[in-house]
Amino acid sequence: MDKLTFIKVGGKIVEEERILRQLLQDFVAIHGHKVLVHGGGRSATQLADRLGVKNKMVDGRRITDEEMLKIVTMVYGGLVNKQIVAGLQALGVNALGLTGADMNLIRSDKRPVGNVDYGFVGDVKEVNAEPLVSLIQQNIVPVLAPLTHDKQGRLLNTNADTIAGKVAGALTGYFKVTLIYCFEKKGVLLDENDNQSVISRLNHATFKQYVAQGIIRGGMIPKLENAFEAAESGVEKVIITQASEIRRGTGTQILPQE
Amino acid sequence: MDKLTFIKVGGKIVEEERILRQLLQDFVAIHGHKVLVHGGGRSATQLADRLGVKNKMVDGRRITDEEMLKIVTMVYGGLVNKQIVAGLQALGVNALGLTGADMNLIRSDKRPVGNVDYGFVGDVKEVNAEPLVSLIQQNIVPVLAPLTHDKQGRLLNTNADTIAGKVAGALTGYFKVTLIYCFEKKGVLLDENDNQSVISRLNHATFKQYVAQGIIRGGMIPKLENAFEAAESGVEKVIITQASEIRRGTGTQILPQE
Repeated sequence: MDKLTFIKVGGKIVEEERILRQLLQDFVAIHGHKVLVHGGGRSATQLADRLGVKNKMVDGRRITDEEMLKIVTMVYGGLVNKQIVAGLQALGVNALGLTGADMNLIRSDKRPVGNVDYGFVGDVKEVNAEPLVSLIQQNIVPVLAPLTHDKQGRLLNTNADTIAGKVAGALTGYFKVTLIYCFEKKGVLLDENDNQSVISRLNHATFKQYVAQGIIRGGMIPKLENAFEAAESGVEKVIITQASEIRRGTGTQILPQE
Repeated sequence: MDKLTFIKVGGKIVEEERILRQLLQDFVAIHGHKVLVHGGGRSATQLADRLGVKNKMVDGRRITDEEMLKIVTMVYGGLVNKQIVAGLQALGVNALGLTGADMNLIRSDKRPVGNVDYGFVGDVKEVNAEPLVSLIQQNIVPVLAPLTHDKQGRLLNTNADTIAGKVAGALTGYFKVTLIYCFEKKGVLLDENDNQSVISRLNHATFKQYVAQGIIRGGMIPKLENAFEAAESGVEKVIITQASEIRRGTGTQILPQE
Protein backbone atom coordinates (compact mmCIF):
# COMPACT_ATOMS: atom_id res chain seq x y z
CA MET A 1 0.00 0.00 0.00
CA ASP A 2 1.10 3.56 -0.74
CA LYS A 3 1.90 5.92 2.08
CA LEU A 4 -0.53 8.78 2.81
CA THR A 5 0.22 11.62 5.23
CA PHE A 6 -2.58 13.66 6.80
CA ILE A 7 -1.60 17.02 8.25
CA LYS A 8 -4.08 18.87 10.43
CA VAL A 9 -3.32 22.53 11.05
CA GLY A 10 -5.34 25.19 12.77
CA GLY A 11 -5.20 28.38 14.67
CA LYS A 12 -2.48 30.87 13.96
CA ILE A 13 -0.78 28.65 11.41
CA VAL A 14 -3.33 29.10 8.66
CA GLU A 15 -4.13 32.68 9.54
CA GLU A 16 -0.81 34.49 9.38
CA GLU A 17 0.58 34.80 5.92
CA ARG A 18 4.24 34.30 6.77
CA ILE A 19 3.61 31.26 8.99
CA LEU A 20 1.22 29.77 6.43
CA ARG A 21 3.82 30.16 3.68
CA GLN A 22 6.37 28.24 5.77
CA LEU A 23 3.82 25.54 6.60
CA LEU A 24 2.93 25.08 2.94
CA GLN A 25 6.61 24.73 2.02
CA ASP A 26 7.09 22.08 4.71
CA PHE A 27 3.91 20.35 3.58
CA VAL A 28 5.05 20.28 -0.04
CA ALA A 29 8.34 18.65 1.02
CA ILE A 30 6.55 15.62 2.51
CA HIS A 31 7.01 12.66 0.22
CA GLY A 32 4.13 10.69 -1.22
CA HIS A 33 0.39 11.25 -1.12
CA LYS A 34 -0.94 13.79 1.34
CA VAL A 35 -4.04 15.55 2.63
CA LEU A 36 -4.26 18.86 4.48
CA VAL A 37 -7.06 19.51 6.99
CA HIS A 38 -7.41 23.04 8.31
CA GLY A 39 -9.28 25.02 10.91
CA GLY A 40 -9.84 28.75 10.94
CA GLY A 41 -11.58 29.57 14.19
CA ARG A 42 -9.66 32.75 14.88
CA SER A 43 -10.58 34.24 11.50
CA ALA A 44 -14.21 33.27 12.08
CA THR A 45 -14.12 34.99 15.47
CA GLN A 46 -12.60 38.11 13.93
CA LEU A 47 -15.19 38.27 11.15
CA ALA A 48 -18.00 37.77 13.66
CA ASP A 49 -16.60 40.61 15.77
CA ARG A 50 -16.46 42.91 12.76
CA LEU A 51 -20.06 42.00 11.86
CA GLY A 52 -21.27 42.52 15.40
CA VAL A 53 -22.20 38.84 15.71
CA LYS A 54 -21.60 37.45 19.18
CA ASN A 55 -19.05 34.64 19.52
CA LYS A 56 -20.50 32.11 21.95
CA MET A 57 -18.17 29.39 23.19
CA VAL A 58 -18.77 26.56 25.67
CA ASP A 59 -15.63 24.71 26.86
CA GLY A 60 -13.73 26.04 23.86
CA ARG A 61 -16.40 24.80 21.45
CA ARG A 62 -18.24 27.25 19.25
CA ILE A 63 -22.01 27.63 19.38
CA THR A 64 -23.10 27.86 15.75
CA ASP A 65 -26.36 29.69 15.17
CA GLU A 66 -27.69 30.56 11.69
CA GLU A 67 -25.52 33.70 11.40
CA MET A 68 -22.42 31.93 12.68
CA LEU A 69 -22.98 29.08 10.21
CA LYS A 70 -22.81 31.60 7.37
CA ILE A 71 -19.63 33.06 8.85
CA VAL A 72 -17.84 29.72 9.16
CA THR A 73 -19.03 28.71 5.68
CA MET A 74 -17.43 31.88 4.32
CA VAL A 75 -14.25 31.68 6.37
CA TYR A 76 -13.54 27.93 6.37
CA GLY A 77 -15.02 26.99 2.97
CA GLY A 78 -14.01 30.21 1.21
CA LEU A 79 -11.25 32.38 2.61
CA VAL A 80 -8.96 29.93 4.42
CA ASN A 81 -9.53 26.96 2.11
CA LYS A 82 -9.04 28.81 -1.17
CA GLN A 83 -6.01 30.75 0.03
CA ILE A 84 -4.35 27.45 0.96
CA VAL A 85 -5.31 25.93 -2.39
CA ALA A 86 -3.91 28.89 -4.33
CA GLY A 87 -0.76 28.82 -2.17
CA LEU A 88 -0.20 25.11 -2.84
CA GLN A 89 -0.84 25.51 -6.57
CA ALA A 90 1.88 28.18 -6.63
CA LEU A 91 4.24 25.57 -5.15
CA GLY A 92 3.32 23.07 -7.87
CA VAL A 93 0.99 20.94 -5.73
CA ASN A 94 -2.27 20.02 -7.41
CA ALA A 95 -4.52 21.01 -4.49
CA LEU A 96 -8.31 20.72 -4.45
CA GLY A 97 -10.34 22.41 -1.71
CA LEU A 98 -13.22 20.37 -0.32
CA THR A 99 -15.91 20.46 2.33
CA GLY A 100 -17.84 17.38 3.44
CA ALA A 101 -20.70 18.46 1.15
CA ASP A 102 -18.52 18.25 -1.96
CA MET A 103 -18.99 14.84 -3.59
CA ASN A 104 -20.88 13.95 -0.41
CA LEU A 105 -17.55 13.20 1.25
CA ILE A 106 -18.62 13.57 4.88
CA ARG A 107 -22.18 13.24 6.10
CA SER A 108 -22.99 14.27 9.64
CA ASP A 109 -25.96 14.63 11.96
CA LYS A 110 -26.77 17.90 13.66
CA ARG A 111 -25.68 17.38 17.24
CA PRO A 112 -28.69 16.64 19.49
CA VAL A 113 -29.49 19.32 22.03
CA GLY A 114 -28.32 18.13 25.45
CA ASN A 115 -27.12 20.33 28.31
CA VAL A 116 -25.81 22.63 25.60
CA ASP A 117 -27.41 23.50 22.25
CA TYR A 118 -24.41 23.76 19.95
CA GLY A 119 -26.64 24.79 17.04
CA PHE A 120 -25.54 23.85 13.54
CA VAL A 121 -22.68 21.59 14.58
CA GLY A 122 -22.24 18.19 12.94
CA ASP A 123 -21.22 14.85 14.38
CA VAL A 124 -19.62 12.80 11.63
CA LYS A 125 -21.69 9.76 10.61
CA GLU A 126 -20.20 8.61 7.33
CA VAL A 127 -17.05 9.21 5.31
CA ASN A 128 -17.32 8.43 1.61
CA ALA A 129 -13.78 7.18 1.01
CA GLU A 130 -13.87 6.12 -2.66
CA PRO A 131 -13.98 9.56 -4.34
CA LEU A 132 -11.15 10.74 -2.08
CA VAL A 133 -9.07 7.67 -2.86
CA SER A 134 -9.63 8.23 -6.56
CA LEU A 135 -8.48 11.87 -6.32
CA ILE A 136 -5.42 10.98 -4.26
CA GLN A 137 -4.43 8.26 -6.73
CA GLN A 138 -4.50 10.94 -9.44
CA ASN A 139 -1.93 12.87 -7.34
CA ILE A 140 -4.49 15.47 -6.33
CA VAL A 141 -3.98 16.83 -2.82
CA PRO A 142 -7.28 17.33 -0.97
CA VAL A 143 -7.49 20.36 1.31
CA LEU A 144 -10.35 19.73 3.73
CA ALA A 145 -12.33 22.52 5.41
CA PRO A 146 -14.09 21.76 8.72
CA LEU A 147 -17.60 21.73 7.26
CA THR A 148 -19.84 18.75 6.64
CA HIS A 149 -23.46 18.38 5.51
CA ASP A 150 -26.52 16.41 6.54
CA LYS A 151 -27.46 15.40 2.96
CA GLN A 152 -30.71 17.35 3.49
CA GLY A 153 -29.22 20.60 2.20
CA ARG A 154 -27.79 21.82 5.47
CA LEU A 155 -24.09 22.57 6.02
CA LEU A 156 -22.79 21.83 9.52
CA ASN A 157 -19.80 23.23 11.38
CA THR A 158 -17.58 20.29 12.32
CA ASN A 159 -14.45 20.09 14.43
CA ALA A 160 -11.34 19.93 12.24
CA ASP A 161 -9.53 17.46 14.54
CA THR A 162 -12.51 15.12 14.27
CA ILE A 163 -12.60 15.44 10.49
CA ALA A 164 -8.89 14.67 10.27
CA GLY A 165 -9.28 11.59 12.49
CA LYS A 166 -12.40 10.23 10.82
CA VAL A 167 -11.20 10.74 7.26
CA ALA A 168 -7.73 9.36 8.02
CA GLY A 169 -9.41 6.34 9.61
CA ALA A 170 -11.64 5.81 6.57
CA LEU A 171 -8.61 5.71 4.27
CA THR A 172 -6.67 3.06 6.22
CA GLY A 173 -8.05 0.35 3.93
CA TYR A 174 -6.43 2.02 0.93
CA PHE A 175 -3.22 3.57 2.21
CA LYS A 176 -0.63 3.26 4.99
CA VAL A 177 -1.79 6.38 6.83
CA THR A 178 0.18 8.75 9.07
CA LEU A 179 -1.81 11.49 10.79
CA ILE A 180 -0.03 14.52 12.24
CA TYR A 181 -1.97 16.96 14.41
CA CYS A 182 -0.16 20.30 14.59
CA PHE A 183 -0.57 22.64 17.52
CA GLU A 184 1.43 25.27 19.39
CA LYS A 185 3.72 22.95 21.39
CA LYS A 186 6.37 20.41 20.36
CA GLY A 187 4.14 17.60 21.55
CA VAL A 188 2.17 16.58 24.61
CA LEU A 189 4.14 18.00 27.53
CA LEU A 190 4.66 16.55 31.00
CA ASP A 191 5.14 20.12 32.18
CA GLU A 192 3.21 22.62 30.08
CA ASN A 193 5.81 25.31 30.81
CA ASP A 194 8.73 23.18 29.61
CA ASN A 195 8.82 22.67 25.85
CA GLN A 196 11.55 20.04 26.38
CA SER A 197 9.26 17.77 28.42
CA VAL A 198 7.67 16.16 25.35
CA ILE A 199 6.14 12.73 26.03
CA SER A 200 7.46 10.69 23.11
CA ARG A 201 4.88 7.87 23.21
CA LEU A 202 1.49 7.94 24.91
CA ASN A 203 -0.96 5.10 25.39
CA HIS A 204 -4.57 5.41 26.51
CA ALA A 205 -4.05 4.17 30.07
CA THR A 206 -1.28 6.70 30.71
CA PHE A 207 -3.37 9.42 29.05
CA LYS A 208 -6.24 8.73 31.46
CA GLN A 209 -3.83 8.74 34.38
CA TYR A 210 -2.36 12.12 33.28
CA VAL A 211 -5.87 13.55 32.92
CA ALA A 212 -6.70 12.36 36.45
CA GLN A 213 -3.49 13.98 37.70
CA GLY A 214 -4.22 17.26 35.90
CA ILE A 215 -1.07 16.96 33.76
CA ILE A 216 -3.22 16.88 30.61
CA ARG A 217 -6.19 19.22 30.69
CA GLY A 218 -8.44 21.67 28.83
CA GLY A 219 -8.53 21.58 25.05
CA MET A 220 -5.83 18.87 24.94
CA ILE A 221 -8.32 16.28 26.21
CA PRO A 222 -10.72 16.28 23.22
CA LYS A 223 -7.73 16.66 20.88
CA LEU A 224 -6.12 13.54 22.34
CA GLU A 225 -9.41 11.66 22.33
CA ASN A 226 -9.63 12.27 18.57
CA ALA A 227 -6.03 11.13 18.23
CA PHE A 228 -6.63 7.89 20.18
CA GLU A 229 -9.75 7.19 18.13
CA ALA A 230 -7.70 7.58 14.93
CA ALA A 231 -4.98 5.26 16.31
CA GLU A 232 -7.66 2.67 17.16
CA SER A 233 -9.20 2.93 13.68
CA GLY A 234 -6.06 1.63 12.02
CA VAL A 235 -4.10 4.79 11.30
CA GLU A 236 -0.54 3.51 11.37
CA LYS A 237 1.05 6.48 13.08
CA VAL A 238 -0.68 9.32 14.94
CA ILE A 239 1.56 12.19 16.02
CA ILE A 240 0.95 15.43 17.87
CA THR A 241 3.56 18.10 17.22
CA GLN A 242 4.39 21.62 16.16
CA ALA A 243 3.82 22.70 12.55
CA SER A 244 7.54 23.33 12.13
CA GLU A 245 8.23 19.63 12.86
CA ILE A 246 6.02 17.98 10.24
CA ARG A 247 8.93 17.10 7.95
CA ARG A 248 10.81 15.40 10.74
CA GLY A 249 7.79 13.71 12.30
CA THR A 250 8.96 14.26 15.87
CA GLY A 251 6.56 14.96 18.75
CA THR A 252 4.26 12.69 20.74
CA GLN A 253 3.20 9.44 19.14
CA ILE A 254 -0.28 8.28 20.15
CA LEU A 255 -0.45 4.51 20.58
CA PRO A 256 -3.45 2.23 20.02
CA GLN A 257 -4.46 -0.38 22.61
CA GLU A 258 -2.03 -3.29 22.61
CA MET B 1 -20.15 12.73 -28.02
CA ASP B 2 -22.19 13.05 -24.84
CA LYS B 3 -24.31 16.11 -24.24
CA LEU B 4 -23.18 18.63 -21.60
CA THR B 5 -25.30 21.55 -20.40
CA PHE B 6 -23.73 24.60 -18.77
CA ILE B 7 -26.06 26.79 -16.74
CA LYS B 8 -24.85 30.18 -15.61
CA VAL B 9 -26.91 31.85 -12.89
CA GLY B 10 -26.31 35.01 -10.96
CA GLY B 11 -27.89 37.79 -9.07
CA LYS B 12 -31.07 37.21 -7.18
CA ILE B 13 -31.35 33.61 -8.30
CA VAL B 14 -28.59 32.26 -6.12
CA GLU B 15 -29.21 34.62 -3.24
CA GLU B 16 -32.84 34.07 -2.31
CA GLU B 17 -33.49 30.72 -0.75
CA ARG B 18 -36.87 30.04 -2.33
CA ILE B 19 -35.75 31.03 -5.84
CA LEU B 20 -32.52 29.06 -5.47
CA ARG B 21 -34.45 25.95 -4.43
CA GLN B 22 -36.60 26.19 -7.57
CA LEU B 23 -33.53 26.75 -9.75
CA LEU B 24 -31.79 23.71 -8.31
CA GLN B 25 -34.87 21.56 -8.95
CA ASP B 26 -35.00 22.73 -12.57
CA PHE B 27 -31.25 22.16 -12.88
CA VAL B 28 -31.52 18.62 -11.53
CA ALA B 29 -34.23 17.84 -14.11
CA ILE B 30 -31.90 18.58 -17.03
CA HIS B 31 -30.84 15.32 -18.67
CA GLY B 32 -27.22 14.31 -19.08
CA HIS B 33 -24.00 15.86 -17.86
CA LYS B 34 -24.14 19.38 -16.50
CA VAL B 35 -22.15 22.19 -14.93
CA LEU B 36 -23.44 25.10 -12.85
CA VAL B 37 -21.61 28.45 -12.86
CA HIS B 38 -22.75 31.02 -10.34
CA GLY B 39 -22.25 34.66 -9.43
CA GLY B 40 -22.95 36.25 -6.09
CA GLY B 41 -22.32 39.96 -6.51
CA ARG B 42 -25.29 41.11 -4.48
CA SER B 43 -24.23 39.07 -1.45
CA ALA B 44 -20.69 40.41 -1.79
CA THR B 45 -22.07 43.96 -1.88
CA GLN B 46 -24.19 43.28 1.21
CA LEU B 47 -21.27 41.80 3.16
CA ALA B 48 -19.03 44.74 2.17
CA ASP B 49 -21.72 47.16 3.36
CA ARG B 50 -21.99 45.37 6.70
CA LEU B 51 -18.18 45.44 7.08
CA GLY B 52 -17.98 49.10 6.16
CA VAL B 53 -15.96 48.28 3.04
CA LYS B 54 -16.77 50.57 0.14
CA ASN B 55 -18.26 48.97 -2.99
CA LYS B 56 -16.58 50.61 -5.98
CA MET B 57 -18.08 49.88 -9.39
CA VAL B 58 -17.09 51.16 -12.85
CA ASP B 59 -19.62 50.47 -15.63
CA GLY B 60 -21.18 47.73 -13.53
CA ARG B 61 -17.80 46.05 -12.93
CA ARG B 62 -16.48 45.68 -9.42
CA ILE B 63 -13.16 47.20 -8.36
CA THR B 64 -11.48 44.50 -6.28
CA ASP B 65 -8.98 45.78 -3.76
CA GLU B 66 -7.31 43.54 -1.13
CA GLU B 67 -10.30 43.75 1.26
CA MET B 68 -12.82 43.16 -1.49
CA LEU B 69 -10.85 40.14 -2.72
CA LYS B 70 -11.26 38.58 0.72
CA ILE B 71 -14.97 39.35 0.65
CA VAL B 72 -15.57 37.78 -2.77
CA THR B 73 -13.41 34.78 -1.81
CA MET B 74 -15.64 34.26 1.23
CA VAL B 75 -18.93 34.89 -0.55
CA TYR B 76 -18.32 33.24 -3.93
CA GLY B 77 -15.95 30.45 -2.89
CA GLY B 78 -17.59 29.79 0.48
CA LEU B 79 -21.14 30.90 1.14
CA VAL B 80 -22.80 30.77 -2.28
CA ASN B 81 -20.79 27.86 -3.67
CA LYS B 82 -21.18 25.55 -0.68
CA GLN B 83 -24.87 26.31 -0.19
CA ILE B 84 -25.48 25.33 -3.81
CA VAL B 85 -23.38 22.17 -3.40
CA ALA B 86 -25.26 21.14 -0.25
CA GLY B 87 -28.58 21.93 -1.95
CA LEU B 88 -27.72 19.78 -4.98
CA GLN B 89 -26.48 16.92 -2.78
CA ALA B 90 -29.85 16.96 -1.01
CA LEU B 91 -31.46 16.47 -4.44
CA GLY B 92 -29.22 13.49 -5.18
CA VAL B 93 -26.82 15.30 -7.51
CA ASN B 94 -23.15 14.61 -6.86
CA ALA B 95 -22.03 18.24 -6.86
CA LEU B 96 -18.46 19.45 -6.34
CA GLY B 97 -17.74 23.12 -5.71
CA LEU B 98 -14.70 24.52 -7.49
CA THR B 99 -12.81 27.73 -8.07
CA GLY B 100 -10.26 28.18 -10.82
CA ALA B 101 -7.50 27.56 -8.26
CA ASP B 102 -8.78 24.07 -7.45
CA MET B 103 -6.88 21.53 -9.57
CA ASN B 104 -5.49 24.60 -11.40
CA LEU B 105 -8.65 24.62 -13.51
CA ILE B 106 -8.56 28.25 -14.62
CA ARG B 107 -5.44 30.38 -14.73
CA SER B 108 -5.78 34.08 -15.27
CA ASP B 109 -3.65 37.23 -15.40
CA LYS B 110 -4.34 40.19 -13.18
CA ARG B 111 -5.94 42.74 -15.47
CA PRO B 112 -3.39 45.38 -16.51
CA VAL B 113 -4.08 48.87 -15.18
CA GLY B 114 -5.45 51.00 -18.01
CA ASN B 115 -7.89 53.88 -17.67
CA VAL B 116 -9.30 51.97 -14.73
CA ASP B 117 -7.43 49.94 -12.10
CA TYR B 118 -9.78 47.05 -11.47
CA GLY B 119 -7.48 45.65 -8.78
CA PHE B 120 -7.44 41.88 -8.23
CA VAL B 121 -9.53 41.00 -11.26
CA GLY B 122 -8.47 38.17 -13.53
CA ASP B 123 -8.60 37.83 -17.30
CA VAL B 124 -8.80 34.13 -18.15
CA LYS B 125 -5.66 32.81 -19.88
CA GLU B 126 -5.97 29.04 -19.69
CA VAL B 127 -8.64 26.47 -18.92
CA ASN B 128 -7.35 23.07 -17.84
CA ALA B 129 -10.07 20.91 -19.39
CA GLU B 130 -8.86 17.36 -18.62
CA PRO B 131 -9.56 17.23 -14.87
CA LEU B 132 -13.03 18.69 -15.45
CA VAL B 133 -13.74 16.17 -18.20
CA SER B 134 -12.65 13.36 -15.89
CA LEU B 135 -14.96 14.55 -13.10
CA ILE B 136 -17.92 14.99 -15.46
CA GLN B 137 -17.41 11.51 -16.89
CA GLN B 138 -17.65 10.19 -13.32
CA ASN B 139 -21.10 11.86 -13.15
CA ILE B 140 -19.84 14.56 -10.82
CA VAL B 141 -21.49 17.94 -11.34
CA PRO B 142 -19.00 20.82 -11.07
CA VAL B 143 -20.30 24.00 -9.44
CA LEU B 144 -17.98 26.82 -10.49
CA ALA B 145 -17.44 29.98 -8.43
CA PRO B 146 -16.26 33.14 -10.23
CA LEU B 147 -12.72 33.04 -8.85
CA THR B 148 -9.53 32.12 -10.68
CA HIS B 149 -5.85 32.23 -9.74
CA ASP B 150 -2.58 33.40 -11.25
CA LYS B 151 -0.63 30.24 -10.31
CA GLN B 152 1.58 32.52 -8.18
CA GLY B 153 -0.60 32.13 -5.09
CA ARG B 154 -3.02 34.93 -5.83
CA LEU B 155 -6.77 34.45 -6.21
CA LEU B 156 -8.46 36.76 -8.71
CA ASN B 157 -12.06 37.90 -8.99
CA THR B 158 -13.32 36.86 -12.42
CA ASN B 159 -16.57 37.58 -14.21
CA ALA B 160 -18.91 34.58 -14.01
CA ASP B 161 -20.25 35.05 -17.56
CA THR B 162 -16.69 34.93 -18.84
CA ILE B 163 -15.89 31.80 -16.83
CA ALA B 164 -19.01 30.09 -18.17
CA GLY B 165 -18.10 30.98 -21.76
CA LYS B 166 -14.42 30.07 -21.53
CA VAL B 167 -14.93 26.77 -19.71
CA ALA B 168 -17.83 25.76 -21.96
CA GLY B 169 -15.63 26.57 -24.95
CA ALA B 170 -12.76 24.49 -23.56
CA LEU B 171 -15.03 21.44 -23.23
CA THR B 172 -16.33 21.49 -26.82
CA GLY B 173 -13.70 18.97 -27.85
CA TYR B 174 -15.11 16.45 -25.37
CA PHE B 175 -18.85 17.07 -25.28
CA LYS B 176 -21.69 18.48 -27.35
CA VAL B 177 -22.06 21.63 -25.24
CA THR B 178 -25.13 23.80 -24.62
CA LEU B 179 -24.57 26.98 -22.62
CA ILE B 180 -27.52 28.78 -21.03
CA TYR B 181 -27.00 32.21 -19.51
CA CYS B 182 -29.81 33.01 -17.08
CA PHE B 183 -30.84 36.54 -16.31
CA GLU B 184 -33.96 38.47 -15.30
CA LYS B 185 -35.70 38.57 -18.70
CA LYS B 186 -37.09 35.84 -20.97
CA GLY B 187 -34.33 36.57 -23.47
CA VAL B 188 -32.85 39.49 -25.35
CA LEU B 189 -35.76 41.87 -25.87
CA LEU B 190 -36.49 44.16 -28.82
CA ASP B 191 -38.37 46.35 -26.36
CA GLU B 192 -36.99 46.10 -22.83
CA ASN B 193 -40.43 46.88 -21.37
CA ASP B 194 -42.14 44.07 -23.28
CA ASN B 195 -41.25 40.60 -22.04
CA GLN B 196 -43.00 39.17 -25.12
CA SER B 197 -40.57 40.84 -27.54
CA VAL B 198 -37.91 38.13 -27.21
CA ILE B 199 -35.51 37.95 -30.15
CA SER B 200 -35.44 34.21 -30.88
CA ARG B 201 -32.14 34.11 -32.81
CA LEU B 202 -29.43 36.73 -32.81
CA ASN B 203 -26.32 36.90 -34.99
CA HIS B 204 -23.36 39.19 -34.47
CA ALA B 205 -24.18 41.64 -37.29
CA THR B 206 -27.71 42.19 -35.97
CA PHE B 207 -26.32 42.48 -32.41
CA LYS B 208 -23.98 45.28 -33.53
CA GLN B 209 -26.82 46.99 -35.35
CA TYR B 210 -29.03 46.82 -32.23
CA VAL B 211 -26.22 48.21 -30.09
CA ALA B 212 -25.81 51.11 -32.57
CA GLN B 213 -29.57 51.73 -32.40
CA GLY B 214 -29.60 51.63 -28.59
CA ILE B 215 -31.94 48.62 -28.52
CA ILE B 216 -29.27 46.57 -26.71
CA ARG B 217 -27.34 48.52 -24.09
CA GLY B 218 -25.67 48.60 -20.68
CA GLY B 219 -24.76 45.32 -19.01
CA MET B 220 -26.32 43.31 -21.85
CA ILE B 221 -23.45 44.27 -24.16
CA PRO B 222 -20.60 42.47 -22.31
CA LYS B 223 -22.97 39.59 -21.51
CA LEU B 224 -23.73 39.15 -25.23
CA GLU B 225 -20.08 39.54 -26.17
CA ASN B 226 -19.27 36.61 -23.87
CA ALA B 227 -22.14 34.68 -25.46
CA PHE B 228 -20.93 35.34 -29.02
CA GLU B 229 -17.41 34.36 -28.04
CA ALA B 230 -18.73 31.05 -26.70
CA ALA B 231 -20.75 30.46 -29.86
CA GLU B 232 -17.62 31.13 -31.97
CA SER B 233 -15.55 28.74 -29.84
CA GLY B 234 -17.65 25.76 -30.83
CA VAL B 235 -20.35 25.67 -28.18
CA GLU B 236 -23.20 24.05 -30.07
CA LYS B 237 -26.02 26.12 -28.60
CA VAL B 238 -25.76 29.36 -26.63
CA ILE B 239 -29.00 30.64 -25.12
CA ILE B 240 -29.90 33.65 -23.02
CA THR B 241 -33.06 33.22 -20.97
CA GLN B 242 -34.78 33.36 -17.62
CA ALA B 243 -33.84 30.82 -14.94
CA SER B 244 -37.38 29.45 -14.96
CA GLU B 245 -36.97 28.44 -18.64
CA ILE B 246 -33.83 26.32 -18.42
CA ARG B 247 -35.71 23.03 -18.73
CA ARG B 248 -37.48 24.18 -21.89
CA GLY B 249 -34.46 25.88 -23.41
CA THR B 250 -36.48 28.80 -24.81
CA GLY B 251 -35.09 32.36 -24.99
CA THR B 252 -32.64 33.99 -27.37
CA GLN B 253 -30.25 31.73 -29.26
CA ILE B 254 -26.89 33.34 -30.00
CA LEU B 255 -25.57 32.35 -33.42
CA PRO B 256 -21.94 32.02 -34.52
CA GLN B 257 -20.69 33.62 -37.76
CA GLU B 258 -21.97 31.71 -40.77
